[in-house]
Amino acid sequence: MNKLPASKIIDLSQPLTTWCGDRLTGVRLVYESWGEPRNNGENTLLLFTGLSPSAHAASSAADPEPGWWEAMIGPGRPIDTRRFHVICFNSLGSCFGSTGPASENPVTGHRWRLDFPELRVEDIAGAAAQALDDLGFSRIHGVIGPSLGGMTALAFLLRYPGRARHLLSISSAPRALPFAIAVRSLQREMIRNDPAWQGGEYPVDAPPVTGMRQARKLGMISYRSPEEWAERFGREQLAEPDPGFGPRFQIESYLEAQADRFVGGFDPNCYIYLSRAMDLFDVDDHAGSGADPFAALSYLDSAAVVGVDSDILFPQHQQKELAQRLEGSGISTAYFDLPSIQGHDAFLVDGERFGPVIAEYLQTL
Amino acid sequence: MNKLPASKIIDLSQPLTTWCGDRLTGVRLVYESWGEPRNNGENTLLLFTGLSPSAHAASSAADPEPGWWEAMIGPGRPIDTRRFHVICFNSLGSCFGSTGPASENPVTGHRWRLDFPELRVEDIAGAAAQALDDLGFSRIHGVIGPSLGGMTALAFLLRYPGRARHLLSISSAPRALPFAIAVRSLQREMIRNDPAWQGGEYPVDAPPVTGMRQARKLGMISYRSPEEWAERFGREQLAEPDPGFGPRFQIESYLEAQADRFVGGFDPNCYIYLSRAMDLFDVDDHAGSGADPFAALSYLDSAAVVGVDSDILFPQHQQKELAQRLEGSGISTAYFDLPSIQGHDAFLVDGERFGPVIAEYLQTL
Repeated sequence: MNKLPASKIIDLSQPLTTWCGDRLTGVRLVYESWGEPRNNGENTLLLFTGLSPSAHAASSAADPEPGWWEAMIGPGRPIDTRRFHVICFNSLGSCFGSTGPASENPVTGHRWRLDFPELRVEDIAGAAAQALDDLGFSRIHGVIGPSLGGMTALAFLLRYPGRARHLLSISSAPRALPFAIAVRSLQREMIRNDPAWQGGEYPVDAPPVTGMRQARKLGMISYRSPEEWAERFGREQLAEPDPGFGPRFQIESYLEAQADRFVGGFDPNCYIYLSRAMDLFDVDDHAGSGADPFAALSYLDSAAVVGVDSDILFPQHQQKELAQRLEGSGISTAYFDLPSIQGHDAFLVDGERFGPVIAEYLQTL
Repeated sequence: MNKLPASKIIDLSQPLTTWCGDRLTGVRLVYESWGEPRNNGENTLLLFTGLSPSAHAASSAADPEPGWWEAMIGPGRPIDTRRFHVICFNSLGSCFGSTGPASENPVTGHRWRLDFPELRVEDIAGAAAQALDDLGFSRIHGVIGPSLGGMTALAFLLRYPGRARHLLSISSAPRALPFAIAVRSLQREMIRNDPAWQGGEYPVDAPPVTGMRQARKLGMISYRSPEEWAERFGREQLAEPDPGFGPRFQIESYLEAQADRFVGGFDPNCYIYLSRAMDLFDVDDHAGSGADPFAALSYLDSAAVVGVDSDILFPQHQQKELAQRLEGSGISTAYFDLPSIQGHDAFLVDGERFGPVIAEYLQTL
């Protein structure tokens, strides 16, 4: 599917055995990078993404379009590319060039669709780890992950002890809790119930737009906060309110605009796979014979956990648990509990709050 | 539509002019009552309902089935029917016997459906006020309303000064804020986007079940709290998880069961009308020439506002605003901020917390 101008391609040299035991051959990941690598990854920061972003986290000479974390990555920015080499893969299972339900199954020559094997967060981490091997970055400086990316960072560190020295977890969590599972389950249901979904067999040019629009709107409801919307929209009505049951309030028009921007950009089957992978992640599944999985992370030199108090999808108490358990394993851990009203999305939009603490943490490394 | 065994009928003696200026003739309300009235309503408590309940708030000799507020109403219960006469109407616009989008338009002989005029919370209050007149209860003791019912209670007291002396508002709010509007807007969209809705013209025996199921699930997400679900369901998986994208976690199965119980019981067009009416309610629309609408309520002898700290749909700060503004108008106001984890639905399911404070308040009257 979509491949952005600055994207590079890595075709994994080895088949990938998934967390559930399936075997994927011909795995391709698309990635972008910023800054210059030193000594096989000694200054490399691996950035995992949330559910829907591509590898285009920031602009570059090859693609001057602003990336999804533009304010955070670049020369002199909080993730300073004069010092660090930053690499970001489009996740396994996503649809911006990497292998996933929307890519071609090399065995059949057709799109994978629902024949794609069960995807776990551990597989997103595993594909990236293999890609780093193939690229020659066998040991890296640190792993950064917001949202789903933070789960993926944990999976990476648990599966590949010693491959990175630092963790920066942003608005993430050690596991999915039932409120978040309920939200995502309903999002998937909206897509699957859209007649245009056709059991996953929709034509490429006729995806289930209605279901995707609704899923995005529910996403926005869970990504932002009631406080932000109360301040930003209040009860403001539209200049031309719909006389029927269409948009009458500003907030409804905002959700329409968000849905407009989303549909067409993301493959519905990929969305469903990645969404379910989030539900299935639990750091304690890595405990093995009752041990504390965080004990296995004690090789880390440091960690930082950043979150906001208005996040309803990855709530504050989960950030705190993560920070406490890292600290409890003897890892020097910084915990930043930011007072932003912008909810889960604050890491994308509240650069004023996130920038300084990310810069502060990275400067200590 | 559905009329329960204990239901009584009142056909309004006068046409109803709606808040938006439409004229409804032949308005019928279904109601139930408990306890014995004295002196034209001197001991009468008028109970307004939330969005989806019928008039069957409690059991009676005529209908021993438990009502939706069974634990709260009856002899010796917090709303003690040995002392009070309690009357509950099925709301105008609802579908349990009262006039609404699912009832017959007396002019055409067909169901109203989307030809029903715009419904406001003020109209639910207005129909009940006319019904009370026709029943001979011109001045009553108090008004009680949970959720939408609390908004309706405010509308009643604002429109008909002096008709009641006390207000008990439960998990309600002085206006709809954008988070709640967003949730309800998406619920309506799910129903309206269900092809079976057919622009509101679905056959009576083939309603848009898929849309209603989804709307109910989103309702549950907003009615309960993440804390309750974390305690109750955690990450428990089903004994027989769906191998595809169907229910795998206990929380998903719970939502399925809630959807099963809801569909078929509520008319989709009525749902849409009542849902929109909630969005449109704002106590400050009653200000008139800039005055404080609460000043117009100063005739009340007392009020009580009860809510819970985990309510995300009618949040704590809105309860507090309501209590403060009532108190600010010189009305003796009790404010109960209950530490329940059961969210907006706590008033329905957490009788242990709500019962004592409701009893305590009513005993002071």
